[in-house]
Amino acid sequence: MNYLNTINSPQDLKKLEIHELDTVAKEIREAVLNRDSKIGGHVGPNLGIVETTIALHYVFNSPQDKIVFDVSHQCYPHKILTGRQKGFIGSDEEIATISGYTNPTESVHDFFVVGHTSTSVSLACGLAKARDLKNEKHNIIALIGDGSLSGGEALEGLSNAAVLGSNIIIILNDNEMSIAENHGGLYTNLRLLRQTNGTAECNMFKALGFEYRYIEEGNSISKLIETFKQIKDSPHPVLLHIHTTKGKGYLPAEEDKEKWHWNLPFDIKSGQNTLSFDNSENYTDITFNYLNKRLEQDKNIVVVTAGTPGAVGLTPERRSQLGQNYVDVGIAEEHAVAFSSALAKGGCKPVFCVWSSFVQRTYDQLSQDLALNNNPAVILVFSGAISAMDATHLGCFDIPLISNIPNIVYLAPTTKEEYLSMLNWGLEQTSHPVVIRVPTKVISDKRKISDNYDNLNTYEIVKQGRDIAVLALGSFFNLGQEVCKKLHLNGIDATLINPRYISGIDQTLLSNLKKDHKIIVTIEDGVLNGGFGEKISRFYGGDDIKVLNFGAQKEFTDRIPLNVLYQRYHLTPDLIVEDILKLK
Amino acid sequence: MNYLNTINSPQDLKKLEIHELDTVAKEIREAVLNRDSKIGGHVGPNLGIVETTIALHYVFNSPQDKIVFDVSHQCYPHKILTGRQKGFIGSDEEIATISGYTNPTESVHDFFVVGHTSTSVSLACGLAKARDLKNEKHNIIALIGDGSLSGGEALEGLSNAAVLGSNIIIILNDNEMSIAENHGGLYTNLRLLRQTNGTAECNMFKALGFEYRYIEEGNSISKLIETFKQIKDSPHPVLLHIHTTKGKGYLPAEEDKEKWHWNLPFDIKSGQNTLSFDNSENYTDITFNYLNKRLEQDKNIVVVTAGTPGAVGLTPERRSQLGQNYVDVGIAEEHAVAFSSALAKGGCKPVFCVWSSFVQRTYDQLSQDLALNNNPAVILVFSGAISAMDATHLGCFDIPLISNIPNIVYLAPTTKEEYLSMLNWGLEQTSHPVVIRVPTKVISDKRKISDNYDNLNTYEIVKQGRDIAVLALGSFFNLGQEVCKKLHLNGIDATLINPRYISGIDQTLLSNLKKDHKIIVTIEDGVLNGGFGEKISRFYGGDDIKVLNFGAQKEFTDRIPLNVLYQRYHLTPDLIVEDILKLK
Repeated sequence: MNYLNTINSPQDLKKLEIHELDTVAKEIREAVLNRDSKIGGHVGPNLGIVETTIALHYVFNSPQDKIVFDVSHQCYPHKILTGRQKGFIGSDEEIATISGYTNPTESVHDFFVVGHTSTSVSLACGLAKARDLKNEKHNIIALIGDGSLSGGEALEGLSNAAVLGSNIIIILNDNEMSIAENHGGLYTNLRLLRQTNGTAECNMFKALGFEYRYIEEGNSISKLIETFKQIKDSPHPVLLHIHTTKGKGYLPAEEDKEKWHWNLPFDIKSGQNTLSFDNSENYTDITFNYLNKRLEQDKNIVVVTAGTPGAVGLTPERRSQLGQNYVDVGIAEEHAVAFSSALAKGGCKPVFCVWSSFVQRTYDQLSQDLALNNNPAVILVFSGAISAMDATHLGCFDIPLISNIPNIVYLAPTTKEEYLSMLNWGLEQTSHPVVIRVPTKVISDKRKISDNYDNLNTYEIVKQGRDIAVLALGSFFNLGQEVCKKLHLNGIDATLINPRYISGIDQTLLSNLKKDHKIIVTIEDGVLNGGFGEKISRFYGGDDIKVLNFGAQKEFTDRIPLNVLYQRYHLTPDLIVEDILKLK
Repeated sequence: MNYLNTINSPQDLKKLEIHELDTVAKEIREAVLNRDSKIGGHVGPNLGIVETTIALHYVFNSPQDKIVFDVSHQCYPHKILTGRQKGFIGSDEEIATISGYTNPTESVHDFFVVGHTSTSVSLACGLAKARDLKNEKHNIIALIGDGSLSGGEALEGLSNAAVLGSNIIIILNDNEMSIAENHGGLYTNLRLLRQTNGTAECNMFKALGFEYRYIEEGNSISKLIETFKQIKDSPHPVLLHIHTTKGKGYLPAEEDKEKWHWNLPFDIKSGQNTLSFDNSENYTDITFNYLNKRLEQDKNIVVVTAGTPGAVGLTPERRSQLGQNYVDVGIAEEHAVAFSSALAKGGCKPVFCVWSSFVQRTYDQLSQDLALNNNPAVILVFSGAISAMDATHLGCFDIPLISNIPNIVYLAPTTKEEYLSMLNWGLEQTSHPVVIRVPTKVISDKRKISDNYDNLNTYEIVKQGRDIAVLALGSFFNLGQEVCKKLHLNGIDATLINPRYISGIDQTLLSNLKKDHKIIVTIEDGVLNGGFGEKISRFYGGDDIKVLNFGAQKEFTDRIPLNVLYQRYHLTPDLIVEDILKLK
């Protein structure tokens, strides 16, 4: 790492001769692989963008010129060149300190905390307009790729960027891939442009009003530098389309681009994972197996994803098994919800599989396209839980987001059996949009599970006790069981309740509890504000009943270990019981 | 109305000769104007689409062929031709019964309840895919115009529709207008296509993969019928671009397209409004006057709207006064939020003005682009209140939507003075994203107003009493005052509190209340679920304090008069006091 050890800012890079930059590229690749192989992370996107990043920092003057990364999962080379190389080649602790996304608290070369897709063009437009109003002169650059272009926010941004009337440079990193393969007419046009070396007249970017440039050799530093010099300080919007190789320079990543978009720790030489994906039973497998089997009988099932099939277990093989009953709409979550609603209206049984963090992108579609129309689409929300993820990928906000929309039945299964029963019911019924919060851990028990959820908002009393009732929702049912056990050790025979329905109140059951209960405890795996527990508190507001709500505080947490969060939020059996006993 | 009285379904229309259809068009225009002149509604969009609608029903076979209207504010001619002509030429009661948007409960010719923009293409894709999976054969048609194309959901939809691989017909009604003028590169391309009679090679729709057709005479029934016959049963996606005249056939509406997009009741002959807009002081005027004046000193202020400037009082004259410090991004709310966040990051002071119902389209941008980055943008939420609007335009969901996102300071001013003080503070401070829920009615009082809100989540005790405390939020502060007066008549000296902050709890003040209060009442002008009151209920969950939350139930209400809703939700001084006294 002869170069990387001496490059502490883009200024250091600029001192090098162009012919030295290929070696810098080689070192950056080694650094990226070093980090990824140790702690996992985005591989292909970062390897593909090495040359672009070097050329950007060689030609432009960051941070006066401002680079905005879309998703920012491809910012590793940028971090390496802006004084954060220790996050890639340093000690384990140094590596852990630097995040995998841009972050203004890390460096003046980062402008936004980003982790969701399709935001860069709009953010760049704002920086550009601010520059113009302040009569400043510098370049604003948005770097977007990996399928992010198909997200509605990016398209709104493009349309606005095109008429900005001043400098904005959008670099479209076209590696012919989304996270998985690309979907949508946008990519039809990119293909045509690649095939014609950028010369095709039918060009959506020109149509919008951009000056359009194309670089076929998107991994050639000299070509990139040459073009960057030409478009630097452009007085009007430019879209630069570069054709790169995802995973460039690391054979396993070049050969299996989808697998190596993001990977767990691995052995660099063999490409074999050193920390394997958890091979125990998981809900993505359970879901696929169930739907695939059901498809044999019911050809109306349509599995829908929005650009992240792998995140919900839909490998290329599985996608191909589902055939025409599978639709990946690309990164276009809003479309996915409206599309699912209309599929249901048309008599199909859509199942949109999406992560909690990304379902956030669809509130208005959930409300207007789906709930208001009461179409019986099914949505499976994965990774809805308090988590140790980056602040950009938290899964703790979906309960307030979804459960407060009228008409949607939001269900929280506690076990595998209950999940499958709820999924079955969701597909059979035709009266409601049904959203299921897929649990995080697969638990099976011998509890008798209902096979019908038509009687909305009826909670299940799993164990009848007295004095104290514990309403333990979904993934945290288990925690509720532990709490009851501990209470038992304290001589308290608590009632344990599985609420099942996140989106409604069981007025009869809650009223009945008043007879012989004095304390009601709610536990949910998400943020308390606007969530499930607060509704129970409201219900008992006028009664002589005490209610304790356990869940997450309203905050963006960033890579904080789960046990730390559980301590902070009192989400352990001991802490919950302690809080309850204080009330007695 | 010789024809309209006999056309009770599209079948009746098909029996006519083509030369008779111009008279049908004339009668439809009269019917549209009859309704609009009596009860107000969308004028220009419906007058412009008369010929298209006639031709559609003449050529296609609704409801087997399915027409999906974007926003559905241009569905009046469709309603008239599908058995609902009484909603336009009938008695006042008949007119009131039929809504201004498509509604499946009204007719089998309507497929979705719609009122927000940019959804039609995605919904049509779902119907088309369902048709294909069921091996059915019919046409799916999406009708989109009036600026809806620039919304992200529409663009996601277009990209997906283009690769559907089977029949879908998208009719782009290009009347050269959004609600106000168009903004964005998309419209650059539409202009080029109009200028070249659809022949320009640089064509974004062709780029996406559509078969593209253009009709210059978009108000010619015979031209439309000719083309519809050609594209009917097309085995692949078609985009038909038609150039129409907004407001066609009614001179005032043709001459002032923005004013006549939607209008209050008017005299048909003179075009003068018979029911005038409320001329008393209102918050859109107050806001404009304040910002415009402030702009004299502070050139960093940027007023942002997303396609609906008129809805927030920004007339063409005012927009021109704001000059380069005003940006309408077109119908692109997501972009507007990200853009505002970046403007703030770049040192400007953006003020995004948006209706409560439309801010719903931006949850993820509020969360990720804005809140997570903690940029000091200001957002003004107008029409955030329980209302008698259509189910598609309710303003009661913004409190759960916004206040549960970390970092956002969501403020609820109670008076004009407090509103301006909060707006001033929002613009001065640089620490938080600030959202202000603009009150509905302008009230002034002599209360001393804070000029600094840095000390977050500090509530104001307006009147110190005992036993009962009333926390009356924002627009409903007034109602809280009334409640306290009534309680006083019942011998109760209640405490009146102005919470000011929707997004946080004043723990100190609430704790202090415990000393000499036994009942806490919250009142908010929005849905209770996930809202403000529930947080107060949670706070007191472990105490011997009773809490009553007043607000709306979680439901989509549709044109229900406000007094009916207030009765239903117990939002009158009498009903609230009655509920309180029951607890005592």
